[in-house]
Amino acid sequence: MFSYKIDDNTELRLLEERHAEQVFALLVENRERHPELDKDFSLEDAQKKIKHDLALFAENKGLGVGIWHEGNLVGGVRYHEIDWSNRMTELGYWISGRFEGRGLVIKTCRVLIDRAFNELGLNRMVISCAAENQKSRAIPEKLGFKQEGILRQSEWLQDRFVDMMIYGLLANEWQTDKRL
Amino acid sequence: MFSYKIDDNTELRLLEERHAEQVFALLVENRERHPELDKDFSLEDAQKKIKHDLALFAENKGLGVGIWHEGNLVGGVRYHEIDWSNRMTELGYWISGRFEGRGLVIKTCRVLIDRAFNELGLNRMVISCAAENQKSRAIPEKLGFKQEGILRQSEWLQDRFVDMMIYGLLANEWQTDKRL
Amino acid sequence: MFSYKIDDNTELRLLEERHAEQVFALLVENRERHPELDKDFSLEDAQKKIKHDLALFAENKGLGVGIWHEGNLVGGVRYHEIDWSNRMTELGYWISGRFEGRGLVIKTCRVLIDRAFNELGLNRMVISCAAENQKSRAIPEKLGFKQEGILRQSEWLQDRFVDMMIYGLLANEWQTDKRL
Amino acid sequence: MFSYKIDDNTELRLLEERHAEQVFALLVENRERHPELDKDFSLEDAQKKIKHDLALFAENKGLGVGIWHEGNLVGGVRYHEIDWSNRMTELGYWISGRFEGRGLVIKTCRVLIDRAFNELGLNRMVISCAAENQKSRAIPEKLGFKQEGILRQSEWLQDRFVDMMIYGLLANEWQTDKRL
Amino acid sequence: MFSYKIDDNTELRLLEERHAEQVFALLVENRERHPELDKDFSLEDAQKKIKHDLALFAENKGLGVGIWHEGNLVGGVRYHEIDWSNRMTELGYWISGRFEGRGLVIKTCRVLIDRAFNELGLNRMVISCAAENQKSRAIPEKLGFKQEGILRQSEWLQDRFVDMMIYGLLANEWQTDKRL
Amino acid sequence: MFSYKIDDNTELRLLEERHAEQVFALLVENRERHPELDKDFSLEDAQKKIKHDLALFAENKGLGVGIWHEGNLVGGVRYHEIDWSNRMTELGYWISGRFEGRGLVIKTCRVLIDRAFNELGLNRMVISCAAENQKSRAIPEKLGFKQEGILRQSEWLQDRFVDMMIYGLLANEWQTDKRL
Repeated sequence: MFSYKIDDNTELRLLEERHAEQVFALLVENRERHPELDKDFSLEDAQKKIKHDLALFAENKGLGVGIWHEGNLVGGVRYHEIDWSNRMTELGYWISGRFEGRGLVIKTCRVLIDRAFNELGLNRMVISCAAENQKSRAIPEKLGFKQEGILRQSEWLQDRFVDMMIYGLLANEWQTDKRL
Repeated sequence: MFSYKIDDNTELRLLEERHAEQVFALLVENRERHPELDKDFSLEDAQKKIKHDLALFAENKGLGVGIWHEGNLVGGVRYHEIDWSNRMTELGYWISGRFEGRGLVIKTCRVLIDRAFNELGLNRMVISCAAENQKSRAIPEKLGFKQEGILRQSEWLQDRFVDMMIYGLLANEWQTDKRL
Repeated sequence: MFSYKIDDNTELRLLEERHAEQVFALLVENRERHPELDKDFSLEDAQKKIKHDLALFAENKGLGVGIWHEGNLVGGVRYHEIDWSNRMTELGYWISGRFEGRGLVIKTCRVLIDRAFNELGLNRMVISCAAENQKSRAIPEKLGFKQEGILRQSEWLQDRFVDMMIYGLLANEWQTDKRL
Repeated sequence: MFSYKIDDNTELRLLEERHAEQVFALLVENRERHPELDKDFSLEDAQKKIKHDLALFAENKGLGVGIWHEGNLVGGVRYHEIDWSNRMTELGYWISGRFEGRGLVIKTCRVLIDRAFNELGLNRMVISCAAENQKSRAIPEKLGFKQEGILRQSEWLQDRFVDMMIYGLLANEWQTDKRL
Repeated sequence: MFSYKIDDNTELRLLEERHAEQVFALLVENRERHPELDKDFSLEDAQKKIKHDLALFAENKGLGVGIWHEGNLVGGVRYHEIDWSNRMTELGYWISGRFEGRGLVIKTCRVLIDRAFNELGLNRMVISCAAENQKSRAIPEKLGFKQEGILRQSEWLQDRFVDMMIYGLLANEWQTDKRL
Repeated sequence: MFSYKIDDNTELRLLEERHAEQVFALLVENRERHPELDKDFSLEDAQKKIKHDLALFAENKGLGVGIWHEGNLVGGVRYHEIDWSNRMTELGYWISGRFEGRGLVIKTCRVLIDRAFNELGLNRMVISCAAENQKSRAIPEKLGFKQEGILRQSEWLQDRFVDMMIYGLLANEWQTDKRL
């Protein structure tokens, strides 16, 4: 019912439990893009993720939105749990391979950054990517995040530790003209 | 961030914790219209109500939306807890006295009925009003609900029991042309 | 140990967990009279029901009694969760087909209505029956309940929605001479 | 509603929350007989005790009954939490000073012992009394319990440790003719 | 990391989850000495026991230590849940058959008794053994506990009830020269 | 009871609830060194912190030790919650001003790093300090941690955001000869 129009073909919706099948199908289709998921990732796991984000949202500690493009779910962006004592949160995102390169993630991130700084009053946004994942790193760079460091071997990915690049963006760096 | 446009001047938003002050101010301004609220109804109580509805929403058992008209919150409509085993829920609504008579509640109810029947697959909607409250009873009647009975002394209102009129609407009675 | 004598052959006892086997056997014997039970209703489910009612009882929000006739459990009557803010509750009842027609349910309901109005201070009792179930509807009618309405398609029964007839009884309508 | 008749003037009832005021008044009247109660023991504490026992009862792990004599609450007997793995429980009892010496506690204990051995299938009952409390010790002795030991300084009573005498009774020692 | 040296070859360590495999292997090797364990006692059960004791420890209500002798876990001693209102607790102990007779349990009990009386300020320690288990009874006797009674049929052991001998030790009976 | 000797005058103990008064007194004495504490930090808060760490410890997710020097508590080191999926944790430390400069924190950190890598099998340790706090930054530098980045405005300290310097140490960088 609720949605946020990004452009003529694209809108964001709060992910609800009834979207679980679409989310699951999309993740399965793009399995190789999601090394962070368990081998036996199931529909139930997709439901759990959505419910987890909704529960955070209900406590004013999170947000998980889906990107609908030409009527289909094609990806999503979420806040990790908001750290209210330090007024910051981290952005996570994913997109179907077939819809990559159209700027959908960038546009969606802008909406969620805007909400974070202007509606919620946060002071800092973080994006962390595997240092080796150039595609993923392009997102914070295009959004104006500053690279702040590289945390060595800080994430276990299936069979090895990877270094994570940390990007940060401060409220006073976010310019109105960057907004959608 | 998310919203649903009803007309050029009006949109619905999912009520979030940060709207509590607006909700509270509006209820206080319209105190005499809300005999169901405790005498010492506080901002914290308004927050609790919103969080309660969000928690239900997160579990796919509820929904609470606010009506924004010309930029201001003027009322709201909500589902009471959804009864999934019988696939039904009840609608509750409230509107500022200053904005009554413009059809805002009717329009909002239509959106929530539509979501209930068409997005959630419910089979039955209920509205219950104090039998003595003619204004409130006008809503289900305009929406095409059928009067199904009167439950005598079934609600305690401040200092006395009141009879409640029960109205019902079935999925197969809801016509597309009634929709927004 | 505790019991309430209704007549020379009949007494009521608070249902306890150790009665689960008797309850289960009786429900199985009268399977066709209980369309509201799951197809795979089990002894564990019977235990759960009893424990649920006992937990409500322990919080002063319910009561579930069994009817023992000539030494055997033959049926039961219970309060649905008591609504203390509106001081009302609903009665539910069931009886073995072999013991129907002897007035055992009526007598038991009277005891529980009496407790509700005179010991607990409730103001309103409700009975709701499937509109199509003439036998069940005879109970509230004999007890002096007033028919208050018919809630269309408000209960899912196995494979279809049924209309529910609502009956109400107020404290001031309950006459002493109706008591046991 | 439920009761168990002990003699023409006396009956037992399951203690419910609504009896809290009577329990509290009786304990206050007999304050000096209850060194185990806090100095600021309140009506709320009496309610908590009753709810605690009802919750145990609901889980098949306890029982707390009141003794009504000539229409007034005069004392009570309870099971401490039942130890199902070892099939035993402990009896506790209290009586108003004004009603002492009439055998009411003895009679009530017999009913609860009977329930324990014959309805619940327990194997062992325990009574523990302060070794210095001759009146209290008379109860297990009259009931046929055997003295099994004395646990030195095992209970803190207001301002000092007291030795506790332990009495035990086994199912096979409980003779039918001792029953009420 | 933490340990308490008892002698050149022996030290005590707080049992942690990562010791579960050693505990389990030792219990399995000494299966016949542990009639209190379920037939299907598993590694998970060993983990649960350790976590249970750690959780009690975290709430200042328990302690479970392992005895390491010449580098291997050979037994353990624990407090049952501390009864703070009466300032007492009970000791439980077990030792591998291969390491019995070297005084390891006695030495460890002394350390835990000392902690109980001198660090925690308890007033009473209890040891209870099956009356028929002479080896186990030797422990409290050597430690200076007094035999206080015999609780008949108070513990179910696999297929029968056994009588339990209760031993008690008071803070003022614990002499410094008995300490390690 | 348990301890770990660092040198002739110094030992570590697991912090338990009964140490709360010592912890609180020490924090109060060094108030200006703890801008992260609330203005009304109380004894109860100190207890809560200790219990929180013990609860984490009981679940194998944390550790909080106190440093005792010449018989007095002078500081502490703790793991923040262990991240088992990525096998890492963060070290936090504090020391009384009067005992600074004696290497006590360094020595204690070494013990906890050793436990993390060698007993728990973690792969990565983190220390984060306010970039402006030179004294605090000296610790990870002396311990051989590598500076990995600076997270801008990532911690709210009383009245302003501060930049946090992140240091990391990997298991394969930790040499045996650095150990105590």
